[in-house]
Amino acid sequence: MNIVESFNEYRSQMNEKILSSDNIILKRLFNLDTNCYAAGSVDVITKEMIGLACSMVLRCDDCVRYHLGKCKELGVSNEQIYEVFAIANLIGGTIVIPHLRRAVEYWEALQEA
Amino acid sequence: MNIVESFNEYRSQMNEKILSSDNIILKRLFNLDTNCYAAGSVDVITKEMIGLACSMVLRCDDCVRYHLGKCKELGVSNEQIYEVFAIANLIGGTIVIPHLRRAVEYWEALQEA
Amino acid sequence: MNIVESFNEYRSQMNEKILSSDNIILKRLFNLDTNCYAAGSVDVITKEMIGLACSMVLRCDDCVRYHLGKCKELGVSNEQIYEVFAIANLIGGTIVIPHLRRAVEYWEALQEA
Amino acid sequence: MNIVESFNEYRSQMNEKILSSDNIILKRLFNLDTNCYAAGSVDVITKEMIGLACSMVLRCDDCVRYHLGKCKELGVSNEQIYEVFAIANLIGGTIVIPHLRRAVEYWEALQEA
Amino acid sequence: MNIVESFNEYRSQMNEKILSSDNIILKRLFNLDTNCYAAGSVDVITKEMIGLACSMVLRCDDCVRYHLGKCKELGVSNEQIYEVFAIANLIGGTIVIPHLRRAVEYWEALQEA
Amino acid sequence: MNIVESFNEYRSQMNEKILSSDNIILKRLFNLDTNCYAAGSVDVITKEMIGLACSMVLRCDDCVRYHLGKCKELGVSNEQIYEVFAIANLIGGTIVIPHLRRAVEYWEALQEA
Repeated sequence: MNIVESFNEYRSQMNEKILSSDNIILKRLFNLDTNCYAAGSVDVITKEMIGLACSMVLRCDDCVRYHLGKCKELGVSNEQIYEVFAIANLIGGTIVIPHLRRAVEYWEALQEA
Repeated sequence: MNIVESFNEYRSQMNEKILSSDNIILKRLFNLDTNCYAAGSVDVITKEMIGLACSMVLRCDDCVRYHLGKCKELGVSNEQIYEVFAIANLIGGTIVIPHLRRAVEYWEALQEA
Repeated sequence: MNIVESFNEYRSQMNEKILSSDNIILKRLFNLDTNCYAAGSVDVITKEMIGLACSMVLRCDDCVRYHLGKCKELGVSNEQIYEVFAIANLIGGTIVIPHLRRAVEYWEALQEA
Repeated sequence: MNIVESFNEYRSQMNEKILSSDNIILKRLFNLDTNCYAAGSVDVITKEMIGLACSMVLRCDDCVRYHLGKCKELGVSNEQIYEVFAIANLIGGTIVIPHLRRAVEYWEALQEA
Repeated sequence: MNIVESFNEYRSQMNEKILSSDNIILKRLFNLDTNCYAAGSVDVITKEMIGLACSMVLRCDDCVRYHLGKCKELGVSNEQIYEVFAIANLIGGTIVIPHLRRAVEYWEALQEA
Repeated sequence: MNIVESFNEYRSQMNEKILSSDNIILKRLFNLDTNCYAAGSVDVITKEMIGLACSMVLRCDDCVRYHLGKCKELGVSNEQIYEVFAIANLIGGTIVIPHLRRAVEYWEALQEA
């Protein structure tokens, strides 16, 4: 199983457990998370780019992976992804670079998938 | 002087001092900061929205103000700004809310300016 | 107006503006925020202490103030508050100390109110 | 070796090395860390819940695991743990969710241990 | 009263209140904080520069001010301070810049003091 | 391959990919990162200690590893490294301890290399 598949599988499996826990706050939070990225006054691609950049400055590899997957599905180009990477690394500083490395690895795995 | 003017004045004044310091690393970092938000494969409005959301999740009031000013200049609508606020507050959590309050105050001051 | 009153007034005023904005994600997030601290399997005082400590390690003065206000209403003792301060400052490190100073100032203002 | 055992073993082994290093500041910091969670005006269960929530909003998987282990020993219920998870995820936002997934996995491993 | 004096006064006043609170954990933490910056295998100037840079990347204005005051007392030059600023702003990214502005303002106030 | 070799190999491989991406902002940021730690008014060892401490308080294992490697090359002693660890753990709090454990493991691997 490659890194894209193993990421998606673990994520689905654990989300299912969390949502079966009967904690209403967590369920609603997950629900908001889905709704928030739906098309509105701001289009879906821009929202996913925002999600990607925020995940990167907050240095969450899994969140970066999730939004990279979404960007791939939506047809965001390699050049655009690198411009988002550049903004995030400039805002967040060189402490973000190790996450950039792992993001690049995942982005390449998505191209091959 | 209102909050928009006093923010801009302090920012300009201190940037000038920093750039007159002869530290080449800081000068280049400031230069990168300007170039990074220029139009490329990703358009300027999207880049400013990304800058705004990243500033919000990292909870920097001054950075939020700066990008709100840019969004205002670029004609970003009230509804769009609130959608960016919503993504940032969802990603960053309720700890971001005090910054949202100050962002709303500044955004309103920008409308009146 | 003392710091307790000015904090509460600004908070109420800005919350009202945010909730009148018609952004459904933000409204639901605010709603979750209220529900989350209601009594459940974990009692209200413990929840407010958790909110206080999390606010402190995340270094948000306004969030600290809000939870201190709630703790005061719920009858949390001075000794208990300092034990929560101690845990938060140990977990978050000496970078939290300036927020501890402002928390102590606000806590004292709450006693006088 | 399951994730609970391997976590505990690595933790013990490295703590021993750190404490044998003769750095007095680190030794005292470790000592404070132990004392801080002892019963006082705030009871031990509440302190561990605070430690768990703070670890979660600060997004430290190992710290989350440690406090989950303590909560398990102290008899904290599944419903209570999820209420603490909910507060932490609401305060810290959706960026905390990947840590929630790993926390749930560890919490389940603790039940089976 | 200038910003140097008002910072020092508030800091002393609140530290006194915290230390008079009889919370042993906080007292010991404050004590460690003092000991940690004493000369050892690493000299005092290097330790204060480390404290300054860490305060900057963690974006704590008060902590930055404290270490700037110490650096001034120890005779750290303007050029050296800017090199520390540069490292901190590169590691921490452009989100640190507003704190750099306030650091420069305070550093200048220290020269005039 | 031990942890030092595998860290260095992955780092080199991904840096190459990033630098071959033709994103001018990222290239310049990497270039600044190299220049920033060169000898200036502040010597190279102090700069690497600053880089190490900042990486630790920001809790980035890979950044910690990189600066530990540099410190080893520059002849920083075990006692000095532990003093830097102590400052970073005191400033950043007990949430840094899991990163300290991994830093100690890597530092020992560097001695054996």
